[in-house]
Amino acid sequence: LSFIVTILGSNSATPAFNRNPTSQLLRIGQEQLLIDCGEGTQMRLLALKQRASRIRYIFISHLHGDHYLGLVGLLSSLHLNGREEDMHLFGPPGLDEILTTQFKYSNTYLCYRIHFHVVSTTPETILDAESFTVSTLPLSHRIHCMGFLFREKPGKRRINKDLLPPTLSVHHLKRLKEGKDLFDPAGNLLYRNEDLTLPPRLPRSYAFCSDTRYEERLVDYVRGVSLLYHESTFLDDQRERAAETFHSTARQAATIARLAEVDKLVLGHYSSRYRDLVPFLTEAREVFPNAVLSIEGEDIEVE
Amino acid sequence: LSFIVTILGSNSATPAFNRNPTSQLLRIGQEQLLIDCGEGTQMRLLALKQRASRIRYIFISHLHGDHYLGLVGLLSSLHLNGREEDMHLFGPPGLDEILTTQFKYSNTYLCYRIHFHVVSTTPETILDAESFTVSTLPLSHRIHCMGFLFREKPGKRRINKDLLPPTLSVHHLKRLKEGKDLFDPAGNLLYRNEDLTLPPRLPRSYAFCSDTRYEERLVDYVRGVSLLYHESTFLDDQRERAAETFHSTARQAATIARLAEVDKLVLGHYSSRYRDLVPFLTEAREVFPNAVLSIEGEDIEVE
Repeated sequence: LSFIVTILGSNSATPAFNRNPTSQLLRIGQEQLLIDCGEGTQMRLLALKQRASRIRYIFISHLHGDHYLGLVGLLSSLHLNGREEDMHLFGPPGLDEILTTQFKYSNTYLCYRIHFHVVSTTPETILDAESFTVSTLPLSHRIHCMGFLFREKPGKRRINKDLLPPTLSVHHLKRLKEGKDLFDPAGNLLYRNEDLTLPPRLPRSYAFCSDTRYEERLVDYVRGVSLLYHESTFLDDQRERAAETFHSTARQAATIARLAEVDKLVLGHYSSRYRDLVPFLTEAREVFPNAVLSIEGEDIEVE
Repeated sequence: LSFIVTILGSNSATPAFNRNPTSQLLRIGQEQLLIDCGEGTQMRLLALKQRASRIRYIFISHLHGDHYLGLVGLLSSLHLNGREEDMHLFGPPGLDEILTTQFKYSNTYLCYRIHFHVVSTTPETILDAESFTVSTLPLSHRIHCMGFLFREKPGKRRINKDLLPPTLSVHHLKRLKEGKDLFDPAGNLLYRNEDLTLPPRLPRSYAFCSDTRYEERLVDYVRGVSLLYHESTFLDDQRERAAETFHSTARQAATIARLAEVDKLVLGHYSSRYRDLVPFLTEAREVFPNAVLSIEGEDIEVE
């Protein structure tokens, strides 16, 4: 199963240096999920030849414009392109009013249904899909703002081909895949399931921590995730400015990653005051070596 | 005085083929005016190195998303960049509610003032600036929708250097520029103003006709303008589809241009069904030869 984050926008507040406001496409197997939707997200999906029509779930972290202003355009384009499938939209209170007001004045009656799920500030599981779950993460920003944790469900045990007796029937293979033990026609145990199978792959997980100041209680919520996105609006010499504006520095993002013992950290939400992003990487790696930059158009595979 | 239209977006409804939704920057001398503001307009201003901070007047023709969804992002970025100067915003009823709702949820208190001027469906003068006026044009679309006519004010008579007597004093030159006749100290007429000056340049004008079906009463309103922008969403073989959706074809846009005897026509608002735009030009020029395509990033000088 693929588990890939594609960066659609990496900048904070205002666009600059060809960097755009926040948006990410997350692909888990056949499912496409959109996380935040800054202005121009639909154009960048087009440019990357990603089909927006395949998105079934959209998650909006908060109602600062750089995280959602592309949403109405995207939803409208899906309508104009004849979408029929339901869309599930998760976001803070007020997003429904914003959408409704705009569709009212454009006299738009969508040809598909949007299920709007209000996301509260209490961390909880908000989606239980076939192969993954999504829960919210507590952030600390100037307005109602939540992160999202995407977690694969545990898979099944995998048949160990090296140990498989050559005489096994198709019926036996089917039972093995179902996790059952094997018996002979008389009902005697032939093989225990765990003797012929390997444990399931470790479930992968992705934590998206949108705008937040340094918030240590986050550590418990993202402990051990495969990939952590943590905003890094500033470099650490601007940590006072970061605190004032409820944002984080690259060093602070890396500190959360280290304390939570995550596998990998991806930085992003860069302030427009920085043209060069290399100092973000250098600063973060001093604290947490397995850090990368979010760069628009790039895929990050969750392993 | 410069009088230049810069195309920021040329496509209809949804973005396609690197074409973006409608927006144009109009520069009249030192003034910068923005006409419609589709999603991503602020990014295209940046890419063209046009300073959004110099815009003082914004005109929104109607509340279909492809004509205004970039507005909140642009206004927010101006705020974040510290704008202090007032902004004048002209648009249909409801635009104020849309903006207010979004700024409420983002908890944004702009550091500059927006004067919102509601544009009715009755053609009228809506702005009387130092060097130009703006009035509305009646269009026929599915929702409340207006065009805009930008008209230079008549200039002053211009001194004809070829006829100027070499003995004229600075005082006399000043009087000439003010349109006055010249007298000797005894009060006798020396020269009549019109004998030493040329008539003022013909005032230039630009009519922006946003989304509309073929609407012949428009002809009287745009008669003789220097430059007419008239939407051409479809080619003429789709004129039934155009009528149904309250849009026009390239042939219909050219017909309005011919009937109104304008100097030049610019086409735009192309449907995403067309990759190649040359057929629009060919079709229009069969009816009205001085037609051009709107191409994003290009300047069209009004002469």
